[in-house]
Amino acid sequence: MKENTTPAHDDAKAPKKTSDDGMNKIKVGITHGDFNGIGYEVIIKALEDNRILELCTPVVYGSAKIATYYRKGMEMQGTPFAQIDDATQARTDVYNIINVIGQEAHITPGESTKEAGEAAFYALERAVADLRQGKIDVLVTAPINKHNIQSETFIFPGHTEYLAASCHDADSGEAPKPLMILCNNHLRVALVTTHLPVSKISEQITVDNIVEKLEIFNRTLTQDFSVVKPRIAVLALNPHAGENGLLGQEETDIIAPAIEKAREKKIHAFGPYAADGFFGNGLYDKFDGVLAMYHDQGLAPFKTIAMESGVNFTAGLPFVRTSPDHGTGYDIAGKNRASEESMRNAIYMAIDILRSRRNHAEMTANPLRKLYHEKGRDNVVLDLK
Amino acid sequence: MKENTTPAHDDAKAPKKTSDDGMNKIKVGITHGDFNGIGYEVIIKALEDNRILELCTPVVYGSAKIATYYRKGMEMQGTPFAQIDDATQARTDVYNIINVIGQEAHITPGESTKEAGEAAFYALERAVADLRQGKIDVLVTAPINKHNIQSETFIFPGHTEYLAASCHDADSGEAPKPLMILCNNHLRVALVTTHLPVSKISEQITVDNIVEKLEIFNRTLTQDFSVVKPRIAVLALNPHAGENGLLGQEETDIIAPAIEKAREKKIHAFGPYAADGFFGNGLYDKFDGVLAMYHDQGLAPFKTIAMESGVNFTAGLPFVRTSPDHGTGYDIAGKNRASEESMRNAIYMAIDILRSRRNHAEMTANPLRKLYHEKGRDNVVLDLK
Repeated sequence: MKENTTPAHDDAKAPKKTSDDGMNKIKVGITHGDFNGIGYEVIIKALEDNRILELCTPVVYGSAKIATYYRKGMEMQGTPFAQIDDATQARTDVYNIINVIGQEAHITPGESTKEAGEAAFYALERAVADLRQGKIDVLVTAPINKHNIQSETFIFPGHTEYLAASCHDADSGEAPKPLMILCNNHLRVALVTTHLPVSKISEQITVDNIVEKLEIFNRTLTQDFSVVKPRIAVLALNPHAGENGLLGQEETDIIAPAIEKAREKKIHAFGPYAADGFFGNGLYDKFDGVLAMYHDQGLAPFKTIAMESGVNFTAGLPFVRTSPDHGTGYDIAGKNRASEESMRNAIYMAIDILRSRRNHAEMTANPLRKLYHEKGRDNVVLDLK
Repeated sequence: MKENTTPAHDDAKAPKKTSDDGMNKIKVGITHGDFNGIGYEVIIKALEDNRILELCTPVVYGSAKIATYYRKGMEMQGTPFAQIDDATQARTDVYNIINVIGQEAHITPGESTKEAGEAAFYALERAVADLRQGKIDVLVTAPINKHNIQSETFIFPGHTEYLAASCHDADSGEAPKPLMILCNNHLRVALVTTHLPVSKISEQITVDNIVEKLEIFNRTLTQDFSVVKPRIAVLALNPHAGENGLLGQEETDIIAPAIEKAREKKIHAFGPYAADGFFGNGLYDKFDGVLAMYHDQGLAPFKTIAMESGVNFTAGLPFVRTSPDHGTGYDIAGKNRASEESMRNAIYMAIDILRSRRNHAEMTANPLRKLYHEKGRDNVVLDLK
C-alpha cells in the first residue's frame, strides 16, 4: 500500500488550494450520526462500490468497532475501513475512519441512548474542527437524534443551527446566517423557518427575514449550483395564498412587499404562490429554486417528489455541508432495509457544490474592468478617477 | 325528442327511492361557480363525451348564455345544453341547464367581479335547495372565488362551511359537522382544520376536534367508500412530529391522547406521523385514509401525488357533494388550457359515493339479531329480555 501523497494544508482557511484531480482528491468528512440509527448502514452501502474512491477520499468520523458490528451483522459487502488518527493521514485508496469514541460502545439498534447522543456530538465536533482547519474539504452528516444529543455543549435544535454557531466570527461577533435547502437534480426547496413549532411560524415571517433568505438563496444558486440569474418562487404562508386577506394577512402585508424588495436588489423572485396548487400543477419545474415558509410546507411535497433521492444542503456557511434528507430511522435500524440513495447523493452533491463554488470563485476573482463601449450609451462618459 | 319519463319525487327527503338503472338515473347537480374562471370550460369538457348520459343525468345550475359564450369562444365540441326551469323537468338524453341569472351577464374571463360572485351564489343556493328536496341526487360544485362571493347572505370561507350551515337542523338547532376529504382512487386525505390562517391552526388542534374528525372519517370510509374496518393514519402538527416535545408539545399533549381515545371507540387510528417522512416514504399506501392537521400539510403532498385527478369530497353531510380540487384558474380562464380531469372525476366520484352509501344503508337497515353461538364465549347467557 502506498503512502498518501496529499500535502498537508499550510493555510487552514484555504480549502480552495486543494485541487481535486489526480492524487489530491476532495476529502469528504462523514459523521456517523446516531449509531443506533441507520447511519452506519447507509454509509457502508453508499461506499460499497469502490469506484467512489476515484472521485473522492472518504473520512468517516465514528468508530471502527461499530462499523464492523453493522457490516458483519448485516452481512454486507464492501471493504473494511482503515483506522487513522488524524484526517491529514487519510489515504486515497481506502475508506478512512477516525475513532471519536473509545472501544466500549453499547449498540442497541432502534433505541435512543445518551451514549449514542454523545458519540454523535463527538463526531460532529471533531469533523467541524477539521473542516475549519482544512483537513477535510466538505462535510456530510448522517442523521442524529435531536433529543439524545442535547447536552451542556449542544443546545441546538439540529445540525444546521450548530454549524452556524460554530462558524461564529470571534472578531465581528457575528455568526453566518444558514439556509436549509432540500435538493435533488430537478428541484431545490429552501426554508424561511426550519425547526419551529407551527404555533410560532407566523411571528418569524418578517420582510427582513424573507429578503435575507432570498439573498442567501440567490447567492447559493449562482455560486454553488452554477445557475446564471436564478428564478426563485416564493410560497405563501396561508392556505390559498391568504385569498386576498380572507385567510390571513401575511401575504399582502409581508410576503409580497418582501418579494418587491428583493426585486429591487435584482433578485428574480416571484409569488407568493399557494403551496398546494404550486406543487400540484408542477409549477416548480419553471423555477431554479422554491422558498417555502416552513418545514412541512416545503419538505412534505419535496420528499413526495424526490422520494429517496433528496439531499439536505446548508447554504450560507463558509464550508459545504450536506446530509441525507431522512432521519435516524430507528424503526428499521439494524435490519438491512434502509436505502443508501440519499446518502450517496449527499456525498455526490457535496462534491459538485464544492467544485461549483471553486469555479465560481476562480471566475469572479479578477473581473476585467468595464470598457467604455460596454456602457451601452454614447452619452456615458468614462469615469477615470 | 322524447319526454322525460322520470317520475317526480313524492318524498322530498328520500333520494334513496330513485334507483339508478334504466330511465331513472342519478341526477347530478353541477353549479357553475365563478363564471369568469375555468368553471364552464371544465364542465363542458367533462361532459363532452355523450356516453356520460348512460351513467347519470347532469343538471347544470348556471346560464345557458354564458355556456354558449365559452363553448363557441373556445370552439369546443359537444352538445349544447337544454334549458329547463326546474330540476324535476330534467331529461335523461341531454345535458340540462337551469338559468339562475337573467340574460344580461358581463363576462370578463380572468377577472373577479361582484356580478360573478352573485351568480355563483345563486347557483349554489338553488342547487342546495333542490338537493334537500330530492330534485337532484348529488351535488358537484365548480370553483368559486371566496372573495367576490361574500355578501350579507354568504359569509363563509368556502363551500364546505356554507353547505354545513345550510343543513342546519331547525329542531335540534345543530348543524352537521363537515369533513373536507381530498381523494383519488388510491389516497384519501382529510383535514382537521381547513380554511384557517397558519397563525390560528394550533389553537384549533384539540383532543375533541381530532376525535370528532376521526369518527366522521371512519364512518365515511365505511359507508361512502365501502372500506371494512378502515385504517387511518394521523399526521403530526409540528416538524419531525414535535421530536418528543423539542419542536412542539401538541403531539404528546393532544394528538397522541386523541388517537388513544379514538382507539377506545374501536377506530383503527395510528400515528402521529411526521408529514414529510410519511409522504416521502410512501407510507400512505398502507392506509385507507390520512388525517392531516391543516390545509397545506395535507393538500400540498396530495396534489403533488394526484396532480389533476384529485377530487374534493365533503363528508359528514346528509347529501353527497364533490368538487374538483383546483381553484377558479383566472390565469388560464377562457384560454382553453384547463384540464377537465378533476371535474370529470368529481362527477364519477359523487355517483360512486352515492351508490356506496345506498348499498351500505340497505345492508345495515335490518341487521339479523345475534344468535347465541355468536357470542363467542360459552359462559355468556342469552339475554331474552
